[in-house]
Amino acid sequence: MLRTLLLATLLFLTGAAMAESPVAITIHGGAGTILPENMTAEREQAIRDALERSARAGHAALEQGRPALEAVVAAIRILEDAPQFNAARGAVLTNTGTVEMDASIMDGATLDAGAVAAVKGIRHPVEAALHVMNDSPHVMMIGEGAMNFARDHGLEFKSEDWFITDFRRQQLEAMQADEQAAQARRQNWYSTVGAVALDASGNLAAATSTGGMANKQWGRVGDSPIIGAGTYADNRACAVSATGHGEFFIRHVAAYNICSLMRLTDMSLDEAADHVINATLKDVGADGGVIAIDPSGRISMPFNTPGMYRAAIHPDGRFELGIYRESE
Amino acid sequence: MLRTLLLATLLFLTGAAMAESPVAITIHGGAGTILPENMTAEREQAIRDALERSARAGHAALEQGRPALEAVVAAIRILEDAPQFNAARGAVLTNTGTVEMDASIMDGATLDAGAVAAVKGIRHPVEAALHVMNDSPHVMMIGEGAMNFARDHGLEFKSEDWFITDFRRQQLEAMQADEQAAQARRQNWYSTVGAVALDASGNLAAATSTGGMANKQWGRVGDSPIIGAGTYADNRACAVSATGHGEFFIRHVAAYNICSLMRLTDMSLDEAADHVINATLKDVGADGGVIAIDPSGRISMPFNTPGMYRAAIHPDGRFELGIYRESE
Repeated sequence: MLRTLLLATLLFLTGAAMAESPVAITIHGGAGTILPENMTAEREQAIRDALERSARAGHAALEQGRPALEAVVAAIRILEDAPQFNAARGAVLTNTGTVEMDASIMDGATLDAGAVAAVKGIRHPVEAALHVMNDSPHVMMIGEGAMNFARDHGLEFKSEDWFITDFRRQQLEAMQADEQAAQARRQNWYSTVGAVALDASGNLAAATSTGGMANKQWGRVGDSPIIGAGTYADNRACAVSATGHGEFFIRHVAAYNICSLMRLTDMSLDEAADHVINATLKDVGADGGVIAIDPSGRISMPFNTPGMYRAAIHPDGRFELGIYRESE
Repeated sequence: MLRTLLLATLLFLTGAAMAESPVAITIHGGAGTILPENMTAEREQAIRDALERSARAGHAALEQGRPALEAVVAAIRILEDAPQFNAARGAVLTNTGTVEMDASIMDGATLDAGAVAAVKGIRHPVEAALHVMNDSPHVMMIGEGAMNFARDHGLEFKSEDWFITDFRRQQLEAMQADEQAAQARRQNWYSTVGAVALDASGNLAAATSTGGMANKQWGRVGDSPIIGAGTYADNRACAVSATGHGEFFIRHVAAYNICSLMRLTDMSLDEAADHVINATLKDVGADGGVIAIDPSGRISMPFNTPGMYRAAIHPDGRFELGIYRESE
């Protein structure tokens, strides 16, 4: 009887502890060479504001006990609406001047996943990825088929004008006027957005959203909508969202690679993320970074470029925001 | 002096041994529940003939000292033309009665990779994937953009009629007439084609080609064009082509998972491939199989379905062909 009571108390305490398990989130807005000539104090402030609003929106959801999946969507919706980042509004333009977006999402508890690629007009591509995960038997849908699916599920569409900023139009013109400069720029800057989170139930989630590569060939798909390359989440290891030279991130299955190193070797989150970014990818000349979180709420944000837009709220509530190599 | 001579002789012998290193290839034509009512003696013979021609075509290239990449393309071209398999000619139909094809290819020596998804009219989608790898800075191209790219590179196009067989038309009608039966059939049969090879230089390659899932939603992409999920090749571990319930193969990054287990644990090719197919995927109810080859030419062809169309030519020249659980 005493034993049963003790067991019940123990179970109750465990349950309470689980429900109160620490929450944490980290987001990114792309990695690359942050060029002073493209950065004004005003622009930097707008970027900082958007990053902070995004991290806090995701964190608020987590504090209300909402699932990690909802938190990453809440965080990414803000970055998709912010014209400073290469996702939805403000996305880069393809070589024909259109906006083609990709997004993906993954649930670390179930390994359920959803992704869309080469979609146009959807205000929040991350929500389209979520619907593919929740409301279709598929993981990945692309192009017109994915857009019809999003329409059927009542997602908000915007006209092309809404997505295209003057900044991106000028960027495309400059790139097309000087192919050499374009090549250099392509190799220096990858501005995807992403979020990973740990919720109060101990579940992980990851999501990524992008306009892809500026001046890219129509129909090109990078790592962002590829489960394993740009996005991965598995409660047994970690949740990862990547930003970088997508082709290399695909070949090296970057996001899953980090989880795999954690599961199959004794590497910690920091060691695994650092290994993939600063050894595996750096060794082949691939620029980029990742944000990653493990089931205890540890956060890792390595990048091998001069800067990466990033923010995090740690389990102890500490807010962190960085642009260049040192956190500020 | 003697020492130098000995060293030179040794180097010469090593070089000769490498050039004469054994070659091997294995191919698949899909895994699933092979239903007697869908199989006639005539159809089985046609399938056996096509599998043998495919394996022998790839093997002939290898024996001529051609790279593994060429061998897998040669093998898959034959399966793409054969109306018995779900790739190019004879591909399954989408829910709107169209043919939408995916393919991917990967070079184990360089980790270069190429893929196309949701393309129409291309006689050999595997060649389109090869061109994306060789002639574009990208890994993955989809839809109209990929088709324009293929046209620019002179690939052969065929009218829709060429791809659609009576068998697939009837299959779609039957599936659409009875949604329940359709569901059952979808879960029982995944007929992708693939090839993996080891060439005389010791390099591995893998490729996969498919029409996807019968009666699929327009725009759905499965694992076949996803590097890591349906196809992976890395000289340091193995080359893999998968066939199965694509959504699960994506979530579990099936092909890369096998290479990862080999690189990070002491598992052999057989153990790693068996683990992914008969533990990881089987545990979550995912049907399918893989063909895989390691740098010594060992071949593994596990599947957790009643059958998988498969053939192999081992390093010792032995030819193997199987349809049901036991090799015949």
